Amino acid sequence: MKAEIIAVGSELLTPDRLDTNSLFLTAELNKLGIEVTRKCVVGDKREDVREAFAHGLSRSDVTISTGGLGPTEDDLTREVVADLLGRKLESNLAVLHGIEQRFQKIGRKMVDINARQAMVPEGATVLENSRGTAPGLWMESEGRVVILLPGPPIEMQTMFARQVAERLVKRAGDVRQITRELRVAGMPESDVDQRIAPIYTKYDGVNTTILAAPGEIQIHLRAWSADRAATDKILDEMVERITLALGENIFTHQAQTLEFVVADALTLNRATISTAESCTGGLLAERLTRVPGSSNYFLGGVVSYSNTLKSAWVDVPAAMIESHGAVSAEVAQALADGIRRRTGSTLGIGITGVAGPGGGTPEKPVGLVHIALAGGKAPIERGMNFPGDRDRVRWQATQTALDMLRRYFIYAGGKHSGAKS
Amino acid sequence: MKAEIIAVGSELLTPDRLDTNSLFLTAELNKLGIEVTRKCVVGDKREDVREAFAHGLSRSDVTISTGGLGPTEDDLTREVVADLLGRKLESNLAVLHGIEQRFQKIGRKMVDINARQAMVPEGATVLENSRGTAPGLWMESEGRVVILLPGPPIEMQTMFARQVAERLVKRAGDVRQITRELRVAGMPESDVDQRIAPIYTKYDGVNTTILAAPGEIQIHLRAWSADRAATDKILDEMVERITLALGENIFTHQAQTLEFVVADALTLNRATISTAESCTGGLLAERLTRVPGSSNYFLGGVVSYSNTLKSAWVDVPAAMIESHGAVSAEVAQALADGIRRRTGSTLGIGITGVAGPGGGTPEKPVGLVHIALAGGKAPIERGMNFPGDRDRVRWQATQTALDMLRRYFIYAGGKHSGAKS
Repeated sequence: MKAEIIAVGSELLTPDRLDTNSLFLTAELNKLGIEVTRKCVVGDKREDVREAFAHGLSRSDVTISTGGLGPTEDDLTREVVADLLGRKLESNLAVLHGIEQRFQKIGRKMVDINARQAMVPEGATVLENSRGTAPGLWMESEGRVVILLPGPPIEMQTMFARQVAERLVKRAGDVRQITRELRVAGMPESDVDQRIAPIYTKYDGVNTTILAAPGEIQIHLRAWSADRAATDKILDEMVERITLALGENIFTHQAQTLEFVVADALTLNRATISTAESCTGGLLAERLTRVPGSSNYFLGGVVSYSNTLKSAWVDVPAAMIESHGAVSAEVAQALADGIRRRTGSTLGIGITGVAGPGGGTPEKPVGLVHIALAGGKAPIERGMNFPGDRDRVRWQATQTALDMLRRYFIYAGGKHSGAKS
Repeated sequence: MKAEIIAVGSELLTPDRLDTNSLFLTAELNKLGIEVTRKCVVGDKREDVREAFAHGLSRSDVTISTGGLGPTEDDLTREVVADLLGRKLESNLAVLHGIEQRFQKIGRKMVDINARQAMVPEGATVLENSRGTAPGLWMESEGRVVILLPGPPIEMQTMFARQVAERLVKRAGDVRQITRELRVAGMPESDVDQRIAPIYTKYDGVNTTILAAPGEIQIHLRAWSADRAATDKILDEMVERITLALGENIFTHQAQTLEFVVADALTLNRATISTAESCTGGLLAERLTRVPGSSNYFLGGVVSYSNTLKSAWVDVPAAMIESHGAVSAEVAQALADGIRRRTGSTLGIGITGVAGPGGGTPEKPVGLVHIALAGGKAPIERGMNFPGDRDRVRWQATQTALDMLRRYFIYAGGKHSGAKS
């Protein structure tokens, strides 16, 4: 089965807004075995909306739209689609009553224009909106389905999950999309591809996509099949072979972020962590504490931007900064040691570098970052030259720091959840 | 003039990827006075790509595509468009030579399949790609323009800026899009709209969009006009009236982020800042140091997650935590005072709260955050109840902290750049 998604709304044709609803819809449709073959954004203009739906109906089994169901005159979707299908719009009393009640609940009187939202095309199935006033609509015509959903993500998602998925699954047949995802840190994209291309090119029926983000590579495997067991077997075999090829470079088979994987490792090993950051300005602490329950392993951190505070807060000797420079392996290690000692944590991380755009020198260019991990048998330190702008340098520095932490537990023989399948 | 944008690539129809090239293109086209009326994403399938271009050519002055110009068999755009326009593809020696040279430069030999990228439709203008191997193409047919650009953002953007914009501007006529943007902090969307709706509804020729993000409202004004001076006058008048209505709630007229506005205020007033964070885990320090040159005003910060460290690092009395709780106005103020004293900064900020999802109680629910600013004539403290999940609570807390800083300079009569037009 093939579907196309139409997003309706002039604001989605400005430089400030993207249609992100289609990502949710694509994931859900794929799960039901429905392929998305086209996405389209049109403004609130009658002829544009009409043309988009006319094309959808002429070529796709399912046409699913978001937006344009509000109460104002700009909201045309309902009207245009009814007209296109040659159906009359009738005021639906049950819907009207529902909207009135919704207004009552929040202590306001329904405005007249909201009655527009109760207009339903003949023969359409109303999809109740438990999160807002605009009901959705399900219509069928010559064996094809048109589904109109509201634009606000929470309304759209709830309506899809509660009322659309079950209706679609009945029509969708047995073919499903079956997927796997692996994420890799500490390796460039070209190395990842070189190691795994000999594997994935052997699997014709599986679509492999490699996505590169700063400090992270995602490997997506996708197959369409009616035989779940057989396809699971094939994908598991692929994952096993890729895992063998990439080893501990893979940090998750469960689509977790690196900070969540590190949080698991810290928790499993009953270890605590503290941070002393300079160029990353608190980003590492921020990422470690994004994880709910992080107070179980994160004790605290300092952002010692000035040299004075590097000495005052984590005992970096002023003479060391003088002789090696604030951006040096020595200072990174002193930061890591100092913060660990000051907080009494199991492990300590120190980061110092040149995030840019200013501050670079020929010897210590923008992008140079030293990262140290204290608390293991031996100190671990890495000096990296990261490409890109300030944001990118800072992000990659924290990505490397988290990856050093993750690998520490693997190499030290600690417990870790990352590399299992 | 009307344009539509076609993004070509099956990876853009997965749940992991969005076509973001269209945001750049929309902004640039709008600047040239060209309206974007439709955006479309199609996969690497011959008939889908063909249909998208056929529709584009039939209704839009300009059809502009990204992607599908690579060397592999999946890259169909060139071929499909040539066929659609009834033009033969011919190998272009200059392009071929350019690609060979590019490979030579990086010390590799050109692979045979790259010769595909040198195939150019009869009568097409080649757009040189200074950042990659795939050249772009400019074609005209019956008064309409088709522009094929590569998919990688940096290649596409460079090519547009250097070779497409000047060609389009010659055709675009005199009408331009003229815009203004204001950003507001510290007010809910409904209040903003209530105050400014009486203003913007009076301006028929100006499109006003209000976008709400956590802790921030953006007001976009857009007008299409051939008379720049007259339209500038109208927009300036609108901005002036909106500025009067919203006053110091507006933090920028230059589309700056809040941390950049605060950085300006700190710099203008030769003030320094330090932070003591609990629930925000370093996010405030991270935001303050996103700004290049932040070492001029940011001295340092601590993330004192544990109560012990709140006392050890910034002298919050253990008895105060005991009697008022770690999440309290008193502790927020002690954090702000303590970090200011410890670092010797002009101002200090303390944040403590319940970011969730755990840790809430009936008296101190998830979302409760206390924020204090020390260093002014009198201490400033705010207790807020933020809605949303952990990420959202943390973000809004830092947004409020930055806004308190910004307002401090306004109310204290300091220099600030935020509220001027």
